[in-house]
Amino acid sequence: MLPLRAAARRILPRSFQTCHYSSSISTFPRTISSLLHSPPSDEGANETVTITGWVRSVRRMKNVSFAHVSDGSTIHPLQAVLTKEQSEDLSMGASVKITGEWKESVGGKGQQSRELLAEKVEVLGEADPLTYPLQKKYQTPEFLRTLLHLRPRILANTNLLHLRSGIISTLTAFFAENSFIQCHTPIITSSDCEGGGEVFAITRPESFFKTPKYLTVSSQLHLEALATAVPRVWTLGPTFRADKSDTTRHLSEFYMLEVEAAFIDTLDPLIALIEDMVATLIRSISASRLGKETLSAAGGEDKAKELEERWKGLLERPWSRITYTEAISRLNSAVEQKDAQFVFPPVWGAGLQAEHERFLAQTVFDGPVFVTDYPKSLKPFYMLPSTSTTPTPEGGETVACFDLLVPAVGELIGGSLREHRYNELLAEMQRRGMAVGDGGEDEGSLGWYLELRKWGSVKHGGFGLGFDRLVCYLAGVENIREAVAFPRWYGRCDL
Amino acid sequence: MLPLRAAARRILPRSFQTCHYSSSISTFPRTISSLLHSPPSDEGANETVTITGWVRSVRRMKNVSFAHVSDGSTIHPLQAVLTKEQSEDLSMGASVKITGEWKESVGGKGQQSRELLAEKVEVLGEADPLTYPLQKKYQTPEFLRTLLHLRPRILANTNLLHLRSGIISTLTAFFAENSFIQCHTPIITSSDCEGGGEVFAITRPESFFKTPKYLTVSSQLHLEALATAVPRVWTLGPTFRADKSDTTRHLSEFYMLEVEAAFIDTLDPLIALIEDMVATLIRSISASRLGKETLSAAGGEDKAKELEERWKGLLERPWSRITYTEAISRLNSAVEQKDAQFVFPPVWGAGLQAEHERFLAQTVFDGPVFVTDYPKSLKPFYMLPSTSTTPTPEGGETVACFDLLVPAVGELIGGSLREHRYNELLAEMQRRGMAVGDGGEDEGSLGWYLELRKWGSVKHGGFGLGFDRLVCYLAGVENIREAVAFPRWYGRCDL
Repeated sequence: MLPLRAAARRILPRSFQTCHYSSSISTFPRTISSLLHSPPSDEGANETVTITGWVRSVRRMKNVSFAHVSDGSTIHPLQAVLTKEQSEDLSMGASVKITGEWKESVGGKGQQSRELLAEKVEVLGEADPLTYPLQKKYQTPEFLRTLLHLRPRILANTNLLHLRSGIISTLTAFFAENSFIQCHTPIITSSDCEGGGEVFAITRPESFFKTPKYLTVSSQLHLEALATAVPRVWTLGPTFRADKSDTTRHLSEFYMLEVEAAFIDTLDPLIALIEDMVATLIRSISASRLGKETLSAAGGEDKAKELEERWKGLLERPWSRITYTEAISRLNSAVEQKDAQFVFPPVWGAGLQAEHERFLAQTVFDGPVFVTDYPKSLKPFYMLPSTSTTPTPEGGETVACFDLLVPAVGELIGGSLREHRYNELLAEMQRRGMAVGDGGEDEGSLGWYLELRKWGSVKHGGFGLGFDRLVCYLAGVENIREAVAFPRWYGRCDL
Repeated sequence: MLPLRAAARRILPRSFQTCHYSSSISTFPRTISSLLHSPPSDEGANETVTITGWVRSVRRMKNVSFAHVSDGSTIHPLQAVLTKEQSEDLSMGASVKITGEWKESVGGKGQQSRELLAEKVEVLGEADPLTYPLQKKYQTPEFLRTLLHLRPRILANTNLLHLRSGIISTLTAFFAENSFIQCHTPIITSSDCEGGGEVFAITRPESFFKTPKYLTVSSQLHLEALATAVPRVWTLGPTFRADKSDTTRHLSEFYMLEVEAAFIDTLDPLIALIEDMVATLIRSISASRLGKETLSAAGGEDKAKELEERWKGLLERPWSRITYTEAISRLNSAVEQKDAQFVFPPVWGAGLQAEHERFLAQTVFDGPVFVTDYPKSLKPFYMLPSTSTTPTPEGGETVACFDLLVPAVGELIGGSLREHRYNELLAEMQRRGMAVGDGGEDEGSLGWYLELRKWGSVKHGGFGLGFDRLVCYLAGVENIREAVAFPRWYGRCDL
């Protein structure tokens, strides 16, 4: 078959022939970042360059004007020196193309040690200062959330885009190096894994699928199926909860990083993996320009210092661990010793409230803490019984699981070993009234999940990390609605 | 605040203290891949190792048995040598843990140059041969699609998981190196970008959002918003079409890799980027063990050779280009010269049919071909008018766009320059009867999209690549339902 290609080319009229063009990246405009961070040329000769970007500000002096131009490749703008005439049509938000001499600036320092002495200035797209919604004055996060299509132009938001991207690429490399396979698990699913939360239902087109379908609340069950073939899998994808939460840490659509590993007997390998993963991230970020810019964008020196301390703290290992039962004792002794006062009294068998989690992560441990071995009744059906030796009140049953709590954010990760024994899982599912019919025939049942335990079952476990919360935590951003470019929550789905 | 951490630790009872544990990866079991590909130890000493995995086959001889064991880390099984007694409880599909001496095999070659002389054999999970659905005999793809939870255990499917993961990590590194920012665009959206295809609607919980919402059909519009802040963005995420297509190349839920770049004047940088991206992938895959295993899994020597030729062909650059108008002429002259016969006569102004695309990619070019400058009436509202000089029948308008056609798969990528002029875009949207109200107030309207052209608009363009089709193409897999672990199509959403 192959020789046809050449033959086909020969029979084509000349105009069909392709022409040569150069390697891709050189065909995109040079970024301001590459310019600001390039070493000064050896011979001290000044280079003629062309840059494109958006005007951040224009300062008009008597004989000369200075324009700050950003192209989103770095949060630091480039300074262009213009004649009065050249700057006439420039205003904040306008897009421009400037050609000029890239040279040492007189008395400049740091990022501003060089500047662009403009020769040719072209306005590509105007921005009428009277109508442009982004203004130099302080605009509240709530106001900016009404302008999601323009918000990425705010430098702090530009930085968050870079940071998220850097986290993704670092983690992708981390998992690849450690022989974890990245999988794409389905978004439209037949079953609701957790059983608890509200799900979004897809009902139109009618009867497109045989039965109603839902947006996934977790990839875990599907990852478990994959882990019975490829024992180290992970995924980073969107998950959905139709909860009416109106908090700084909940979204209706959010990204989860989920990991599943087979042939493990305890939680230790998962916990060590999490510590490794975060340490790798921190080392990569803090050594990079991305890290420096994230600190610059943190909102002042104090916040930058606090964030840098947070990063450093995360490198101290191992992180703290405490069983749920011990955590309840600790919370109660804090109440008794009048160290703390809670709205909800800490009671064994009840969930940890946000105020409890905050006290543990912020006050007791002042850093990340794994709370392990929660009561069985608080957790989903699939968890393996715990082997913890901590005595529980009235011998209450616990399961082999952990929640990772971190200051400011609260629960960041939840993980567990999974029940791998067919009979035990079947009994638990029946006890909870779950459908266990044959998966193929009866869509929506978890028969297939049970069947994973029927042939060649192995001990396994995994965890799910709230990816947007991780971005918040590493960026020092308080509200998850800032960490996501197009956030969706109860009643709000702009764009 | 920080000193509290140490203080808090001091006041904790001893049992709350954490213990030390080692770095994560060493805590996971050693993979068969790492064992098969480790160099023989220097002193020729035989190593005692423990492996875990699933039994692929057992061969019982008079005094000795051979078991092939896989753990999904490679498609090549490890050979274990067992006593008759040790092999008694082993059957295909069972999970095992075997400890023994890893030594040179007598007369072994290649992957089998070493074998595991078992000392201890432990069955972790049985697989009753009478009920285990995966059998040594040939099982059709259609049959295996009824067993999605077990199908990843088939070695060809295991390999597809590895290949997809390898493609993702290679592309993630490629885009990071070229200063493209990876973004997460929303799945639940207010608008239907393409206007054409059927969408899935989310209707429950009722009134969760103010108006009905849909599953995204493309990230393009959101990427355009991001590209007005960060001019090089990309995303890899799920997209949805509720079309009732029942073909080997359509799914209801599929992954799209989308790129958007600002400050470009022509399609050339996008086309060069695509060629670079694929060349990077091919070079990375063919140099790796993943590539060799993909060829092994291709289904025989002929198919492996054909696939290797396909990979090599993709490295020949530049790829062919032809305008839509020229393509129609070419198809018609093939009909006139009796080189080809089509069901649908090629007519300027009508879409290219699958048979036309196949003829172009397979017969005329025998490789990838960019078809550019389609009639405006065939394409969505947002495309920029073309600057092509190819005369069109009756001066029909064309737009600056391309479809990349490849043999076997058909359309793999579609891209275009976008209309960046406010007035022209508004006119076109009005001509097509689209909502252009204020985005914030009137959910579902594309007012926000129009507004991107109001302040600091720049020329830009991008493309969307059918990621699952790419996996098919690079793996030599014919049906997209095999390239996706949990495929969804009309009437089918198992698991």
